[in-house]
Amino acid sequence: MTSAKEFIWPIRVYYEDTDSGGVVYYANYLKFMERARTEWLRNLGFEQDQLAEQEGIIFAVHRAEIDFISPARFNDALEIRVGIVERKRASMIFRQDITNTSNGRTLCKGKVQIASIDATSFRPRPIPESLLKELPDV
Amino acid sequence: MTSAKEFIWPIRVYYEDTDSGGVVYYANYLKFMERARTEWLRNLGFEQDQLAEQEGIIFAVHRAEIDFISPARFNDALEIRVGIVERKRASMIFRQDITNTSNGRTLCKGKVQIASIDATSFRPRPIPESLLKELPDV
Amino acid sequence: MTSAKEFIWPIRVYYEDTDSGGVVYYANYLKFMERARTEWLRNLGFEQDQLAEQEGIIFAVHRAEIDFISPARFNDALEIRVGIVERKRASMIFRQDITNTSNGRTLCKGKVQIASIDATSFRPRPIPESLLKELPDV
Amino acid sequence: MTSAKEFIWPIRVYYEDTDSGGVVYYANYLKFMERARTEWLRNLGFEQDQLAEQEGIIFAVHRAEIDFISPARFNDALEIRVGIVERKRASMIFRQDITNTSNGRTLCKGKVQIASIDATSFRPRPIPESLLKELPDV
Repeated sequence: MTSAKEFIWPIRVYYEDTDSGGVVYYANYLKFMERARTEWLRNLGFEQDQLAEQEGIIFAVHRAEIDFISPARFNDALEIRVGIVERKRASMIFRQDITNTSNGRTLCKGKVQIASIDATSFRPRPIPESLLKELPDV
Repeated sequence: MTSAKEFIWPIRVYYEDTDSGGVVYYANYLKFMERARTEWLRNLGFEQDQLAEQEGIIFAVHRAEIDFISPARFNDALEIRVGIVERKRASMIFRQDITNTSNGRTLCKGKVQIASIDATSFRPRPIPESLLKELPDV
Repeated sequence: MTSAKEFIWPIRVYYEDTDSGGVVYYANYLKFMERARTEWLRNLGFEQDQLAEQEGIIFAVHRAEIDFISPARFNDALEIRVGIVERKRASMIFRQDITNTSNGRTLCKGKVQIASIDATSFRPRPIPESLLKELPDV
Repeated sequence: MTSAKEFIWPIRVYYEDTDSGGVVYYANYLKFMERARTEWLRNLGFEQDQLAEQEGIIFAVHRAEIDFISPARFNDALEIRVGIVERKRASMIFRQDITNTSNGRTLCKGKVQIASIDATSFRPRPIPESLLKELPDV
């Protein structure tokens, strides 16, 4: 599925996202990345509240590497990319780059490792088969 | 108890709290107010995680009225006041003003109504007796 | 203009918006309300970064009254309403209610007073004429 | 200076920091790390608002690598470490680990690269000499 291979989620920068340096506060790019992962998953047909209730599985971030290249500012329109670069039995690694929609400039490059864990014990649990088969080969 | 009547919690403004207007983002004053209420409660001997586990009670904000008078800026030292102005069986109203520590200027005036609710059903539950007896007469 | 009289902005609840009580953290509803006001203004043809640069005007919240009626949860789809209930020379009052899209339930009722201020001095400045004439009679 | 070599800043987890998974939301650890860097700098005698006004210099995060090892929860007391592991003419790399104060458990390991930049042009600028001489050899 191509949709799973490269997914783009648009985000607008609001005041809440910026800081007094005049740019988006660095931690907030991680919020944008999670919103995009959530929408990528929804686009594949999976709702995280249902995964938690029905399968007892939640996704947790185990590692994030972010390069902050150029700042986004108030009112900017951004595109958050979600590309899967590694999939294992109980984890996935995403490439998540952020660009400015108006000029295509890359603002941020992220690599985010997600673990599939038990919603109660927080121990690793295999990614549900139904989701695995929707993931692209990498 | 005087400590319950007027409690002051100091807070420093960090980048995360500000926006590109150069001042503290308006919603963040409500975070400061909650931090102060949490510390006021701790100061009275009550930990909210224990209240939830042992008594099944959490506190929820039912209504907030905030006047934003003068802006706080990055690096400002603030004082968040917690004064109780009304107590009922299952609710309390707090007066929460915020001042700039260096000049005493009032930045924000808040009135916040808290309900005591069941941690699971979210229905009203009486404030625990042990807490009620620590509250000042109002 | 009807579009100015009642504007609705859809918002999805992400993990970042919730707290460990399992519901949206109370201060975050104020973020949702500001996003909706920003989009209402954009819908009328006004970009706040341009208003700041070209006219030297920004909008600041002077007062907010919020009733938190029923909690929103992770993954909920919400509708944020923007209705103008008072307009003066340098201020406006908005009615901003939040409903759950799936069942129409009212979660939050807000009344937010905005002041038009100078971007540098933070002193009151008349709302730009170009915007005033787009506002509905109230 | 030993104080510069290993600095510890205590932080309490409030509701605002958690999400509906019951734990601290992943992006918020980056807020904690910035608070600690700000206090480390203050402890060395430097206020960032003065550095910006007097020297025209601000610090921006260029890269962050974070391992999320074990979750922090509401009401936990945390310790945020600030250790400098590399210093160059216009950048520094910090090691920032987060531990649970009550049991010493490591929750998070961070490596954060900071650039010294011009507050207006955002171009690299040498770290002020006055600060450089306070930094420990690494």
